[in-house]
Amino acid sequence: MTVNSDQNAEIEAQRSAAQPTRRVVAKGLEEILYQIVPVLDHGFIRVIDYMGDDSAIVQAARVSYGRGTKRVSEDRGLIRYLMRHRHTTPFEMCEIKYHCKLPIFVARQWIRHRTANVNEYSARYSILDNEFYIPNAEHLASQSDANRQGRSGVLEGEEAQRVLHLLRDDAENAYMHYAEMLNENSQEQKPYPERSGLARELARMNLSLNFYTQWYWKIDLQNLMHFLELRADPHAQYEIRAYADAMLETIRHWVPHTFQAFMDYGIGGVRLSSGALEIVKRLINGESVSREDTDLSAREWSELMAILGIET
Amino acid sequence: MTVNSDQNAEIEAQRSAAQPTRRVVAKGLEEILYQIVPVLDHGFIRVIDYMGDDSAIVQAARVSYGRGTKRVSEDRGLIRYLMRHRHTTPFEMCEIKYHCKLPIFVARQWIRHRTANVNEYSARYSILDNEFYIPNAEHLASQSDANRQGRSGVLEGEEAQRVLHLLRDDAENAYMHYAEMLNENSQEQKPYPERSGLARELARMNLSLNFYTQWYWKIDLQNLMHFLELRADPHAQYEIRAYADAMLETIRHWVPHTFQAFMDYGIGGVRLSSGALEIVKRLINGESVSREDTDLSAREWSELMAILGIET
Amino acid sequence: MTVNSDQNAEIEAQRSAAQPTRRVVAKGLEEILYQIVPVLDHGFIRVIDYMGDDSAIVQAARVSYGRGTKRVSEDRGLIRYLMRHRHTTPFEMCEIKYHCKLPIFVARQWIRHRTANVNEYSARYSILDNEFYIPNAEHLASQSDANRQGRSGVLEGEEAQRVLHLLRDDAENAYMHYAEMLNENSQEQKPYPERSGLARELARMNLSLNFYTQWYWKIDLQNLMHFLELRADPHAQYEIRAYADAMLETIRHWVPHTFQAFMDYGIGGVRLSSGALEIVKRLINGESVSREDTDLSAREWSELMAILGIET
Amino acid sequence: MTVNSDQNAEIEAQRSAAQPTRRVVAKGLEEILYQIVPVLDHGFIRVIDYMGDDSAIVQAARVSYGRGTKRVSEDRGLIRYLMRHRHTTPFEMCEIKYHCKLPIFVARQWIRHRTANVNEYSARYSILDNEFYIPNAEHLASQSDANRQGRSGVLEGEEAQRVLHLLRDDAENAYMHYAEMLNENSQEQKPYPERSGLARELARMNLSLNFYTQWYWKIDLQNLMHFLELRADPHAQYEIRAYADAMLETIRHWVPHTFQAFMDYGIGGVRLSSGALEIVKRLINGESVSREDTDLSAREWSELMAILGIET
Repeated sequence: MTVNSDQNAEIEAQRSAAQPTRRVVAKGLEEILYQIVPVLDHGFIRVIDYMGDDSAIVQAARVSYGRGTKRVSEDRGLIRYLMRHRHTTPFEMCEIKYHCKLPIFVARQWIRHRTANVNEYSARYSILDNEFYIPNAEHLASQSDANRQGRSGVLEGEEAQRVLHLLRDDAENAYMHYAEMLNENSQEQKPYPERSGLARELARMNLSLNFYTQWYWKIDLQNLMHFLELRADPHAQYEIRAYADAMLETIRHWVPHTFQAFMDYGIGGVRLSSGALEIVKRLINGESVSREDTDLSAREWSELMAILGIET
Repeated sequence: MTVNSDQNAEIEAQRSAAQPTRRVVAKGLEEILYQIVPVLDHGFIRVIDYMGDDSAIVQAARVSYGRGTKRVSEDRGLIRYLMRHRHTTPFEMCEIKYHCKLPIFVARQWIRHRTANVNEYSARYSILDNEFYIPNAEHLASQSDANRQGRSGVLEGEEAQRVLHLLRDDAENAYMHYAEMLNENSQEQKPYPERSGLARELARMNLSLNFYTQWYWKIDLQNLMHFLELRADPHAQYEIRAYADAMLETIRHWVPHTFQAFMDYGIGGVRLSSGALEIVKRLINGESVSREDTDLSAREWSELMAILGIET
Repeated sequence: MTVNSDQNAEIEAQRSAAQPTRRVVAKGLEEILYQIVPVLDHGFIRVIDYMGDDSAIVQAARVSYGRGTKRVSEDRGLIRYLMRHRHTTPFEMCEIKYHCKLPIFVARQWIRHRTANVNEYSARYSILDNEFYIPNAEHLASQSDANRQGRSGVLEGEEAQRVLHLLRDDAENAYMHYAEMLNENSQEQKPYPERSGLARELARMNLSLNFYTQWYWKIDLQNLMHFLELRADPHAQYEIRAYADAMLETIRHWVPHTFQAFMDYGIGGVRLSSGALEIVKRLINGESVSREDTDLSAREWSELMAILGIET
Repeated sequence: MTVNSDQNAEIEAQRSAAQPTRRVVAKGLEEILYQIVPVLDHGFIRVIDYMGDDSAIVQAARVSYGRGTKRVSEDRGLIRYLMRHRHTTPFEMCEIKYHCKLPIFVARQWIRHRTANVNEYSARYSILDNEFYIPNAEHLASQSDANRQGRSGVLEGEEAQRVLHLLRDDAENAYMHYAEMLNENSQEQKPYPERSGLARELARMNLSLNFYTQWYWKIDLQNLMHFLELRADPHAQYEIRAYADAMLETIRHWVPHTFQAFMDYGIGGVRLSSGALEIVKRLINGESVSREDTDLSAREWSELMAILGIET
């Protein structure tokens, strides 16, 4: 269960209360404001506040370039120009705030992006809920032999059953002992009055990395796109990619012109080294090029062929 | 003149158009949204967007501390607690965007605060207006002999007249030659068709540091307070302090509880070294303490006495 | 065991190889470079590189203030002046790099300080060692009833034994199952050839937050002091404070003047609100002040009395 | 004149004093440590400190990837892999500190890169020297009509003479009046004892943007490369590009493997949008493609043809 009925009621209350504002309003994003977008088995993201929209980016660019931007007749073209030429600062003028519920091992990857503001649920102050992530069978990947960082194939049969059993059993065990060590129920009373109860900040260390945590995460649009470029990438771990994909959808609602430009230049774009560009030019000229004719390593070569859709 | 009639009409249009939003609305700040707050002779600040209010800070703190904050019965007390104990991250959950017009030498100090987003009017792309800062007579300070960074007294009589004349005359001269080198009028035509006109990015170097520039400046509340603590301080240069004071007023409208806590703990608070604290304890005990009995340097001693309001 | 014999040999090799450099050398820090400083049961910190020393701070300040600093005759006084007046940028000119081994729950607090560079051991790529943190009996604190974030007293007798047993048993169990799911030995062979083995990036989620991780952590001196002010504080959790205390010692070796100023103004200093300052002035004047005469809350009052060493 | 004889003597003293260190030493960079690299007419850069070298990047990557990197047999290949796949954090483990002398309008562009530490010569505290930038005749570019941000051609004959005369004359005038307003000679005495002298922080506003300032600038290698990618680009203004080019040379001395990878993937690399990539694939397949067959705007099309070296 991702949210309980109390939380649902609170979300509905937030959604039903509209007030007038003089600020820029992003109509598409207002539609989904506060709504839960489920991710993984118990997680979610939801947008809880934002600042700006496509027009705010254009406005900021026009402040920078002054009369110089008068000639760019329309917003969409200007936004594409800015993204193509890495004029990143206008995109920093938009800001978004998410409420996320996510497994701790995902939070540990996520937090590496430093240019954001975070308020995380504190297990020093409060007691964590008994919720942990168990992968669906289709995501129970085996270790790739070729690639340290990769998955390859999916566990099957008995091995899969055994893994699911171990993950679930160990997590339940860990939580049961966490609760026992705390010796504190939800009314903050002691089930065993003769025991003191271990400090929360210590008891939490018994929980495993698939337990869920929560945070508010606030970031500007430029840094959000950088985050998504890395985390919506096929090389990212599936579990964080699931969050990145859900966030991509919120951008589509929020800043449609920027979203489209980002899909073209960011997510869908590729980078070629100077050596790779030389090869591309030779191929366009109709030359037949083999790796031996180039300076590329075997790995670079196969990456380039994959980008160009050439079978090797 | 701070803004022209075109700009005034645009501001009125922005102010008159209210739309519904599901976001948190800060009523006090909506009142003054987009309004010009004049600063110095041609400068201004105005708030053009914001995210969050006092309640957003409280909400973020409650996410962090979970059930642990239930006992703090009211928002005001929680905000004061957060500020007193340097729990700074909840204040990062609010964001504000200003449009500022300011002399270049002020912009040079201001930009040293790195944790902000900026889009500045570009003199590579566009032509700067003929507007420069000339201090009022009462701010025409003389150099302090005691303090490298300080002013002391005010220039008077002939010397003041001469300084005002030089500042004005040199700025007008600089702009006249800037325009001549550009060889470009407001319709982007060449007054002297036989001349090419110097590139804007080069011509600008003839302008002096009192010319006005403009930018959009976006920052979270925590970093804004840090900026204001340094720049609304009596040791800050008067010209940037004038901007900081105007921004303080916008915080009062935006987040009244946070503003009050900031005035008590930030702006109005003092810091004592361990040595100074020892002296304070002895004074409270009724001891008579002279500097020779302490480890403080002459400078530290006089700073402490000033804080304690003790004449020396 | 904190380091094994291979690692010890590597450290000795690093320490024995000195080369000439034209850079500033901090003799005190060279003495302990690369040396393991044990922290907790299996953790450590060690300095593996640095840039600058006290003289680099002075040099940077003199660049800023130019001829204006000529009058400050000596480095120690200038460094104290800079710290007292929050001229923080010269301290950013020094940089230090640590190699740390620390439990994951400590790493989770630590990483919240964003102004640093980090390379952490990746459990996506590699297999974690079977090392986890178990507190000493004297640090097995019970939850404070008064303070959500605090400890109070120490668990004793049977309850302590039970907690230690649970922590150790669950961690050993978690690792055993981690290894089973991986199905990979240290030679990267499969103990059960018929099983695929779960991807490392998934298997790791079974480990608990007391398992050790490692990272390289690089930060400038100014931000390091900010980190230590928060984490060497008595309110910080004991386990991260143990790391902060060890790092404080490295600063003493590196930049002795800055260390002393930091102990006086930073670690040992106190902050008074404007209301608290008024009370201090009244107390110095010999007035008898009770809380009812003031605007302070009960909590603020008791905090102030504690600072002033006045019993209540 | 870029440096005076006092400064030269100081530099020689710094260069001649070598001491032993246990840290990693970058021999190539030690060769040029402290040496002045002249830029523009009076400016310079020089490296005054550094931390790490190519091996430190490799070491940090191996901490991250643990046993997983054992298979990458050599440092050069690993560095290229890291750069190709945007594993940026290992490059943050190296740090460099420059002393730069540069015109204020260049400093204003430069400071927009926020992830760096700066100590700038303060004109609030100290008196600026009478040194300003005057372009060489070959850099006296005219404004491009096609591109707001660009130059096109070079001013010639009388127009060039007039521009050079105006720039020099106005700067000399500005400095003369700056000195008069200060009423302070190099011995800090008042030439006109009956005048108070204007505060330095005010008098400086009379100087124009081509006057030189100085700063210490410290940055990690990753962020330095990002800076250079933008500022060594042909679209950057010539004057800041001159500094970027000089800094590129220092990287070549410091971290030769990283430098080569950066020239291939960063400086020399190109980025293709998803639409551009489709066109490249069609061209490689031997199709004849005209812009009308694509979604690209005229501008994007001509940019792509330029990248591919296809005449249009």
